[in-house]
Amino acid sequence: MTSLRNTSLVAILALACAAPAMAQFKNAKHAVEYRQAAFTVMGKHFASLGAMVSGKAPFDAAKAKADAQVVAMVSTLPWSGFGPETEDVKSDAKMEVWLEKTTFEQGAQRLTKAAADLATAADSGNLDQIKLAFGATAKSCKACHDSYRN
Amino acid sequence: MTSLRNTSLVAILALACAAPAMAQFKNAKHAVEYRQAAFTVMGKHFASLGAMVSGKAPFDAAKAKADAQVVAMVSTLPWSGFGPETEDVKSDAKMEVWLEKTTFEQGAQRLTKAAADLATAADSGNLDQIKLAFGATAKSCKACHDSYRN
Repeated sequence: MTSLRNTSLVAILALACAAPAMAQFKNAKHAVEYRQAAFTVMGKHFASLGAMVSGKAPFDAAKAKADAQVVAMVSTLPWSGFGPETEDVKSDAKMEVWLEKTTFEQGAQRLTKAAADLATAADSGNLDQIKLAFGATAKSCKACHDSYRN
Repeated sequence: MTSLRNTSLVAILALACAAPAMAQFKNAKHAVEYRQAAFTVMGKHFASLGAMVSGKAPFDAAKAKADAQVVAMVSTLPWSGFGPETEDVKSDAKMEVWLEKTTFEQGAQRLTKAAADLATAADSGNLDQIKLAFGATAKSCKACHDSYRN
């Protein structure tokens, strides 16, 4: 099952990357709402993992797997909501998102990769592996928040 | 690949159902924000499929697969955000959500099942199959919206 799940996750991520849910927003406001919603969903499941990793919640391997799968899939989504048409919509995003587009996109890719690794770690059911991968993912989140979020 | 993807989706849904991201919301407002965010993400990808199904957007099989995978996974999520502590938080949810809890949960299960079928249909790459499954999913969405959403 482990290799199946890993393979399936890779397939999902490959799909998501190959055919991102780009454009097709009704307007810029909808794009911003979409990306914020994706971050909210991802954040909730990441926090759930964080509670287990920090010992604030009991470790539940099945729950950790489910949370990490959501984080991995949803981490591929918000980026299409940062189109140039959203630059002027009020949000927590700094102008640097669009001024440093390439660097921002590299950060997004680092998060997506870290989240995929976190799902693989969660698949192992080994809390120490999950802790390591969680830390790497959290670092990736923080790097972008520091540079690109008010 | 088709059977792998179907199997993987079943695995994901099984995980999500076996270990839902329950409770662990900071407070009732966070639970409402989470469920609304999940609906926003799901709605965006369902609308993207709808545009292809209705011919408003060109059919792109890879994109349809990616959208349907997101819809299927995210359709398992919002329900944990309807805990009894959220009854009094202002939202579009009618009181019937909590008064008719069992019927509401059955509706949620019907949507999750319809969305999984939609992902299977999208996996086939056959637009006619996708249209049928999309229609069934849309019907499932509408049934709950009519009864449980203002």
